Amino acid sequence: MKKLNLCAHPVLNTPPLSSVRIDDSVWNRYVSLIPDKVIPYQWEVLNDRVSDAPASRCLNNFRIAAGEAEGCHKGMVFQDSDAAKWLEAVAYSLASRPDPQLEKNADELIALIGRAQEKDGYLNTYFSLNYPDEKWKNLTEGHELYCAGHFIEAAAAYFQTTGKKAFLEIVCRMADLICETFGAQEGKIHGYPGHPEIELALVRLYRVTGTKRYLETAGYFVEERGRKPNYFLEEMKRADFRHIFPVFSTYDPAYSQSHLPVRQQETAEGHAVRALYLYCAMADLAEEYGDSGLLNRCRLLWDNIVQKRMYITGSVGSSGHLERFTVDYDLPNDSNYSETCASIALAMFGQRMAKVTGEASYFDTVERALYNTVRSGISLEGDRYFYVNPLEVMPENCIENTSRSHIKPVRQKWFDCACCPTNVARTFTSLGQYMYFINDDELYINLFIQNEASFELGGKQADLSLKTDYPKTGRIKIAVKAGGQAFSLNIRMPFFAEDFSVIINGETHGQSFKPEKSKGYFRITKTWSDDEVIVSFTVKPRLVYPNPRVSQNCGKAAIARGPEIFCFEETDNGPNLSSLSLDTGSPLEECLCDDVPGGIVIKAKGKRLVIPAQPDSFCEKYIPCQEETVLAAVPYGFWGNRTPGGMLVWIRC
Amino acid sequence: MKKLNLCAHPVLNTPPLSSVRIDDSVWNRYVSLIPDKVIPYQWEVLNDRVSDAPASRCLNNFRIAAGEAEGCHKGMVFQDSDAAKWLEAVAYSLASRPDPQLEKNADELIALIGRAQEKDGYLNTYFSLNYPDEKWKNLTEGHELYCAGHFIEAAAAYFQTTGKKAFLEIVCRMADLICETFGAQEGKIHGYPGHPEIELALVRLYRVTGTKRYLETAGYFVEERGRKPNYFLEEMKRADFRHIFPVFSTYDPAYSQSHLPVRQQETAEGHAVRALYLYCAMADLAEEYGDSGLLNRCRLLWDNIVQKRMYITGSVGSSGHLERFTVDYDLPNDSNYSETCASIALAMFGQRMAKVTGEASYFDTVERALYNTVRSGISLEGDRYFYVNPLEVMPENCIENTSRSHIKPVRQKWFDCACCPTNVARTFTSLGQYMYFINDDELYINLFIQNEASFELGGKQADLSLKTDYPKTGRIKIAVKAGGQAFSLNIRMPFFAEDFSVIINGETHGQSFKPEKSKGYFRITKTWSDDEVIVSFTVKPRLVYPNPRVSQNCGKAAIARGPEIFCFEETDNGPNLSSLSLDTGSPLEECLCDDVPGGIVIKAKGKRLVIPAQPDSFCEKYIPCQEETVLAAVPYGFWGNRTPGGMLVWIRC
Repeated sequence: MKKLNLCAHPVLNTPPLSSVRIDDSVWNRYVSLIPDKVIPYQWEVLNDRVSDAPASRCLNNFRIAAGEAEGCHKGMVFQDSDAAKWLEAVAYSLASRPDPQLEKNADELIALIGRAQEKDGYLNTYFSLNYPDEKWKNLTEGHELYCAGHFIEAAAAYFQTTGKKAFLEIVCRMADLICETFGAQEGKIHGYPGHPEIELALVRLYRVTGTKRYLETAGYFVEERGRKPNYFLEEMKRADFRHIFPVFSTYDPAYSQSHLPVRQQETAEGHAVRALYLYCAMADLAEEYGDSGLLNRCRLLWDNIVQKRMYITGSVGSSGHLERFTVDYDLPNDSNYSETCASIALAMFGQRMAKVTGEASYFDTVERALYNTVRSGISLEGDRYFYVNPLEVMPENCIENTSRSHIKPVRQKWFDCACCPTNVARTFTSLGQYMYFINDDELYINLFIQNEASFELGGKQADLSLKTDYPKTGRIKIAVKAGGQAFSLNIRMPFFAEDFSVIINGETHGQSFKPEKSKGYFRITKTWSDDEVIVSFTVKPRLVYPNPRVSQNCGKAAIARGPEIFCFEETDNGPNLSSLSLDTGSPLEECLCDDVPGGIVIKAKGKRLVIPAQPDSFCEKYIPCQEETVLAAVPYGFWGNRTPGGMLVWIRC
Repeated sequence: MKKLNLCAHPVLNTPPLSSVRIDDSVWNRYVSLIPDKVIPYQWEVLNDRVSDAPASRCLNNFRIAAGEAEGCHKGMVFQDSDAAKWLEAVAYSLASRPDPQLEKNADELIALIGRAQEKDGYLNTYFSLNYPDEKWKNLTEGHELYCAGHFIEAAAAYFQTTGKKAFLEIVCRMADLICETFGAQEGKIHGYPGHPEIELALVRLYRVTGTKRYLETAGYFVEERGRKPNYFLEEMKRADFRHIFPVFSTYDPAYSQSHLPVRQQETAEGHAVRALYLYCAMADLAEEYGDSGLLNRCRLLWDNIVQKRMYITGSVGSSGHLERFTVDYDLPNDSNYSETCASIALAMFGQRMAKVTGEASYFDTVERALYNTVRSGISLEGDRYFYVNPLEVMPENCIENTSRSHIKPVRQKWFDCACCPTNVARTFTSLGQYMYFINDDELYINLFIQNEASFELGGKQADLSLKTDYPKTGRIKIAVKAGGQAFSLNIRMPFFAEDFSVIINGETHGQSFKPEKSKGYFRITKTWSDDEVIVSFTVKPRLVYPNPRVSQNCGKAAIARGPEIFCFEETDNGPNLSSLSLDTGSPLEECLCDDVPGGIVIKAKGKRLVIPAQPDSFCEKYIPCQEETVLAAVPYGFWGNRTPGGMLVWIRC
């Protein structure tokens, strides 16, 4: 009998990454960019060998901590995590493309990390080197548990894809120390991290090792958060407390989602990445414990984000200051944060929610985040990054030391706080995690990325070949070879695919199978031998209008096409993009254009306010005059890859 | 022969405040509010006797410094300046309305300040009490010279209106110390203040005392600023430098206008109040030295502000972060700073520019600032203040610890940094400074505020009675009694007064006088005995359109009427103000309405986007629908004095 989870649907698994071989006209670029360019480039950065990029010092910190170099820790308090995310990306990359030299570099780094680890398992070069007396004393800002979480994720990934145990043993020693140090028992610290991440990592470590205390400590961290009196406020009162970030001298517990116990939270608050990593762990714990209360809380938080606090590009974090959620329907386009990491975290949360509920609609948002903001986070060449992903940019307005200092009109080589580049790398090398769910008699297709895959379902092998040029079109051909095994194939029906249809071996239905629609999936249960499934739906440009509650977007519209949001770039439309308006009465024309990333330009009639001769910012005797123009929109995920200039998503209409 | 200044026009003076008695239906409220409520309220605040307002500790710091109380300095590094600005307001207030008890309080505070002064003249309670070894060692952030400037302004005012010398003697001792400490000579500090203010104050002290070294030191501070190497960056390199504000650990010299020597600056940069206080001093020095190079630099900076970096409400400072100018045409409405003090400083700069050039047009901007942003800075009851004056507010979006923390949707009782309330008080008690210029044979009327005034022109008395309900109408009746004296009466022609006309004793021109228009003034030269001048022009609502270079305002319009900008408040127009649009084809209807501050409401037809049932912030299947509505606009200067709610100036059209 199949194990049922709390939503009364079969427990789903993500297949091993090595079972999925992506070969997709759009995604190949990223999938091969990561091992070809991003991982080697980031290796050079972490080793401080890229001139004119901010110095990382990340690996040097480990060398110093291992006693193999001189000096003190330099860089951010969470600098160690850059090495962890790099290793996680390497782990995924090795799954699809073996590379002995890369694996050797990774093994050597892992050994170095091991030598930098203290005897009791403690691993954090910032505290080990600079503040050994302050370990665990600044959970608010210290990021020890955050870095530990990334080490654990990387080690779990490295073990899963290489089978090597050295890294896993390092992080288990560290996790054991964390489990001994934190918990409800007397003598333990009754705290939790300022930046969630350890929680989801400990669940992952439990899943890899089977060691229950990792799961229990994850649960402890999640449940303890937000209890009164607030741990962080109490911690800061201690005489020996030292602020790492002066901005937190007045601390808002909502920043770290510690304003309320998680089971009382109804809205997504505070720092967006912190919030979403926490919610990921909540979804994981809901799954592991069959905890419907926790799952319902996840649903509430998800709905709050997706309905009221998310940008159309699948990004979150309306406030540049503190990189955080603000309030419902507050979605400024040109001063937002919309961090690449936050969209990755949103995709991670969505993938977990779909996995635990079996509901396809979560993947509409996962896809929105991946195809728009996460792709925007990295250049087509793989060596430049956006940390912040605005929906409207006037490059001349984005100057240093102002409210818009965080907005960069062109992608950067690296960042002092470099969480995003490595996060993109680990995400694009692990796309297989998002594409499929399996169990003994179920196979779920969540994303339409061309690939070949081999799964074990109920002990037997099923081979899949998925061919598509999605999202250019909605034509997907799936060849299944399964040697007579019975299972259900579930194909996600995207929210925009109104004419979604499926033909199996030339038939829409037949004696051997009865299609049904279930939880947003098109479900075909049959005995599979050598079958062909043709999925088709229309992908065409459409207008999207804002809710007038969003003050920033009243009187505007956006153009979408399939999962992709389109935007207007200065290089196609001239300067002063805000002076443009879209004629919503005229058709959106789709043009194939090889010169433009993504290959499709959407053209539409519009108007342009004529720039007057007067220099004045407001003109007492000026009546605006307009001229007709043709507007051209390109996919947001590829913006900023040509001549630098302005960009906007929401256009007046 | 009359002394000519560098613009080949007669040197102008501001008449003594006591010669102007305001009695105006609109301004009486403020003019009497200040002595009736604001000065007493602020006295209580400075004495820490207002519960639930942030503690000031200002006077207590002086008591401690005088050895009359125990403790250390508390409050901002520039807390002393609050006492200075309060005394300056008191000085002006006593000119128009004697008040023995108030004068006694002021005398006692002045005596206390004298006792808090060090033997060598040094006067600053922050450094005297907390950091005596750090005097003059942090000009970047220390505000010693800034506070000194405010003490000097207050003492000059107090001397001018009461004739008492005690305060003047205190500040002269301090100014002498400053002149000994700073300058080009070897052994002196070759620095200048992080926050300009001392410069204009030293010019003022020179004008009151005739002591030339004060003028020279003002000139030194102005000319030294921005020379290479940058003083502030060098200062911060010193081993014993201690940051007062952590945000300045990375310091942008443009923040304090020290990026270039002032004679090379072409655009208004950095912190808006700092910039404008500096420019005031530059205009003063241009006048004193007949320095046309410096004056031309002032013109360039003025034009840059007024044409490209000023809001329609006469406010400046587009960036909430660092309260600063950004770039041309960057005028966000809902995240700007637009500090009340900055509009006061803009009015001060404009008054100086008009005084030195004899050009009326500067007063169009002075009036714009005073009637809109400065009035917005204080409640009609005088006890609540805006520090920041946005042009668009969604109250629910303005939450703490976000990019919009600086925007308060309702006026506050007081501020930790309380520069604005006292600045408003000193401005409204010294309106006479702005209303008139005089010299031996010239009288200039700059603002139309009902008043009676007596001037000495060429040794003889001229009495003026100006009656008007401006800006409700543009009818101004001026009765002149001058006993047969010949002089020119110059009446400013506001930029919007297209049909400006003048009738003198029933005639538009006559044998005894020939009217002419000169530098924006309507000039009547004649022998005045007992004459009546009737000025009239139409004041009616008009639409103002933005330059499409201002990305934030494309597709919008604003309503103005005379010098006043109108705005839409939630209390009149319902919630979700951004969902409204104005029908620019329909007439702007002017309605008298006693219930509304200012007495005039402008109504116009418009449309409202209907809020849909869907909660989603963007709606894939939603087509916006609109309903007709009537919009009501009220003067911006009075906004937020009724039921709290949203507000906007620029409306979609």
